Amino acid sequence: MRIVILGSGKGTNAVAIMKAAVEQQLAGTEIVAVFSDIENAMILKHAESFNISSRYLNPGNQKTVLSANEEETWINSILEMNPDLIVLAGFMRILKPKFLSIFKNKIINLHPSLLPSFPGLNSIEKAFNKKVKITGCTVHWVNEEIDGGEIIAQAPVRIMNGDVLKLVKQKVHAAEHMLLPWVIRDLATGVIPFVE
Amino acid sequence: MRIVILGSGKGTNAVAIMKAAVEQQLAGTEIVAVFSDIENAMILKHAESFNISSRYLNPGNQKTVLSANEEETWINSILEMNPDLIVLAGFMRILKPKFLSIFKNKIINLHPSLLPSFPGLNSIEKAFNKKVKITGCTVHWVNEEIDGGEIIAQAPVRIMNGDVLKLVKQKVHAAEHMLLPWVIRDLATGVIPFVE
Repeated sequence: MRIVILGSGKGTNAVAIMKAAVEQQLAGTEIVAVFSDIENAMILKHAESFNISSRYLNPGNQKTVLSANEEETWINSILEMNPDLIVLAGFMRILKPKFLSIFKNKIINLHPSLLPSFPGLNSIEKAFNKKVKITGCTVHWVNEEIDGGEIIAQAPVRIMNGDVLKLVKQKVHAAEHMLLPWVIRDLATGVIPFVE
Repeated sequence: MRIVILGSGKGTNAVAIMKAAVEQQLAGTEIVAVFSDIENAMILKHAESFNISSRYLNPGNQKTVLSANEEETWINSILEMNPDLIVLAGFMRILKPKFLSIFKNKIINLHPSLLPSFPGLNSIEKAFNKKVKITGCTVHWVNEEIDGGEIIAQAPVRIMNGDVLKLVKQKVHAAEHMLLPWVIRDLATGVIPFVE
């Protein structure tokens, strides 16, 4: 299974995947490229340190999506890598219908809540402020509904009395770092089926 | 702590509370009455078997709330019991502002999902159909927002591949039967504070 990772930030989830791959835990999965919409994003530096092809791609002028011309470049750059799976690991742009149709049923996203609770941005903070006692993270197929695609896997995180927001974020991120490689392995081995 | 339980159905959660009380697990909590809006509801028979005062109270003609005149009877019947806590255990009517203000910060409800996911009716079925992998149950304070009051406690339930709806319901109900007596004990001992 050939994977392309897209990310915008620190790349801690990408690192979790790359580490798992190095440790032969992903059933022969190969991470073939990491692309970022942020120049000098840490995720690119991390990929380099794992000797994985990594590149900044210009997202264009729009803030929440890839602009039309630049989207072409993104699509072609990804197609060149011939991926079986595209993993959104902290990728902060909404993918448009054209992109989604070209990579139909090949894109998964990691979201820091137990969806359908707390879709969208700042999920951990929203869960914390709502005083839920159990939150977590979700890996789901990406479709046109934001954080609304079919759920593949979830991991729970308990919020204890006295937990501060920072700790809850650490716990959710720790759950993410376990869940995402686990899902990738199960997709690679067929334990979790690809949608047709 | 004096408890009044309101319920409409089989009363399995009421039984869980009554059992815990008999087993001295509720820190001296006394269940002083069980009221139901359904004549001959099993919850009333269960209460009788525990020698707890139980009574059908006419809800009036409306389906989702207590009708105005009947609401008076409900309020007075509950006030006569001088409760510290009112537990909604499968009570299928929405309480109106007057009722809520008279028993302000004294009413808790048990809901079969990890709120804020799946408020309202048929929560377990909705969670099952949404293919979430983690659901559960929630005890929350009751305010005017349906299933929207402050969360007191939650318990998780994992939905495994191959689980049928019936099994998921059983698992959520089992979690409910553990969570609700636990919350009542912690309210009685002050581990969980009453809201002022």
